[in-house]
Amino acid sequence: MIGGAQLGAIQKHDSRESVVARMLALLEQAKDRGCELVVFPELALTTFFPRWYMEDQAEVDVWFEQEMPNAATQPLFDFARTHRIAISFGYAERTPEGRYFNTSILTDRTGTIVGKYRKVHLPGHAEFDPERDFQHLEKRYFEPGDLGFPTWENEGAVMGMCICNDRRWPETYRVMGLQGVELVTLGYNTPSVNAQNRGEGEAHRLFHSQLVMQAGAYQNATWVVGVAKAGVEDGFPLMGGSVIIDPNGFVVAQADTQGDELISHRCDMDLCTFGKTTIFDFKRHRRIEHYGIITRQTGAERPA
Amino acid sequence: MIGGAQLGAIQKHDSRESVVARMLALLEQAKDRGCELVVFPELALTTFFPRWYMEDQAEVDVWFEQEMPNAATQPLFDFARTHRIAISFGYAERTPEGRYFNTSILTDRTGTIVGKYRKVHLPGHAEFDPERDFQHLEKRYFEPGDLGFPTWENEGAVMGMCICNDRRWPETYRVMGLQGVELVTLGYNTPSVNAQNRGEGEAHRLFHSQLVMQAGAYQNATWVVGVAKAGVEDGFPLMGGSVIIDPNGFVVAQADTQGDELISHRCDMDLCTFGKTTIFDFKRHRRIEHYGIITRQTGAERPA
Repeated sequence: MIGGAQLGAIQKHDSRESVVARMLALLEQAKDRGCELVVFPELALTTFFPRWYMEDQAEVDVWFEQEMPNAATQPLFDFARTHRIAISFGYAERTPEGRYFNTSILTDRTGTIVGKYRKVHLPGHAEFDPERDFQHLEKRYFEPGDLGFPTWENEGAVMGMCICNDRRWPETYRVMGLQGVELVTLGYNTPSVNAQNRGEGEAHRLFHSQLVMQAGAYQNATWVVGVAKAGVEDGFPLMGGSVIIDPNGFVVAQADTQGDELISHRCDMDLCTFGKTTIFDFKRHRRIEHYGIITRQTGAERPA
Repeated sequence: MIGGAQLGAIQKHDSRESVVARMLALLEQAKDRGCELVVFPELALTTFFPRWYMEDQAEVDVWFEQEMPNAATQPLFDFARTHRIAISFGYAERTPEGRYFNTSILTDRTGTIVGKYRKVHLPGHAEFDPERDFQHLEKRYFEPGDLGFPTWENEGAVMGMCICNDRRWPETYRVMGLQGVELVTLGYNTPSVNAQNRGEGEAHRLFHSQLVMQAGAYQNATWVVGVAKAGVEDGFPLMGGSVIIDPNGFVVAQADTQGDELISHRCDMDLCTFGKTTIFDFKRHRRIEHYGIITRQTGAERPA
């Protein structure tokens, strides 16, 4: 059984400890349902701070973890070990060298970290943007991930991670798909309204979010567990819509609140086999001789 | 105005001339609606012959065109020129050198061919497969396309083509997206039942077909016009579901029959701009340093 543990809003003044207590309450539910893995959202420990413009690095640093586990999060790892539940969650990482990443980790069922991922596709912008209805400063506070999209054999499945905006990029899933991924975990913090287009509201954005995860799942014959931080954080609404998607691209579980909520599904990894050995048997069907531009060229260039 | 001209079933014994007459009837409707471009399906001139196992090359050759236009198809080009309607359709191509491709062409509004595409992602198999409920011998009768995914500035838009199974591969759209594509035309012949899994019926397969086209449109901020050959050909059902999809991934027109049917929509190319300059501004957001495996490796390999 796999769980997706959606978190409701985390206000700016909420402590790590108060959030961890909420995560533990969700893990209790997950234990009762027999979950073997529970996925929490991106930046699970704090509010979505990239909406705030800050110039003082000391003020920024407050939002980052310098080690994992640390005192505030140790109870999550202890729970994982005691109850044999693997966990995955996102947090803002400051390295010993002073580098900053939007990171997620994956443990096994002993609570040992077996995988780390650092967000590759940072959305938004680096400087204060007066044109936007609100800020989205991920390119200011983080550098792009330097680990690629690794996968791990963990608890009987090939698992990979990505974070939020990564899910909109087919390259994300394909890089993992080429490593035989069977379960992609991803957390997100997605504003309910487009900061650059007020007309693009929540229904529209939920559609996009689900569309890209369903396509990524189907096109790589993998399970996808997408988990939101939802609700209204200090006046700024984040969408919910946490989902578990099967290797055929169908939604099999979906959150229906904007608060703390556990969704779960018995995910059979054998369901990945049919797609991987027929229509998406990459070895037989992919034609890499025609894909060169994908890795050769970053931006779009119209034909001459 | 852009039209998608779905064709109903074409039986094995139907002549090219009888099909062209049906295509002209659809073009008449398109003229009345003010269409500037009309997209027909893959292998529009004949039945979907790869369902038939043939060993005699002379028998195979019957299904191929050795030149385009030719006597049977000239009336389509004449209509295009007279009424200033660009057209695109698929056919089986035999080159002067004796090479065989699953091909489509695109004309401008003078009926002049401005683009040719040869199907890259051939599904199915090359030898008779007794395990299947019916055959799908595209890998027997065609070689993979050798032209990549070119795009053309045509009639005020950047246009590209792909064919049928190509639509399931995100690489298809991305290679064109990196050339700034604004309109992707694609035709398909898709059996209503999976030959390797009878439980996968029409609703399931329509969902997949639409999912991949919607994702490709959204992720590249391009219009997609997907046009079926539908109906029951000599006892073998093909699904319909022809669609026009906007650059946000929303379906804006859809066929509701399995016969000859014209769908149309006033496609504003300016709707591509928002996506291409914000969330999918490739230049700012793509991270090609992490995509290498996509072009380096054809098949999937599990982590060590």
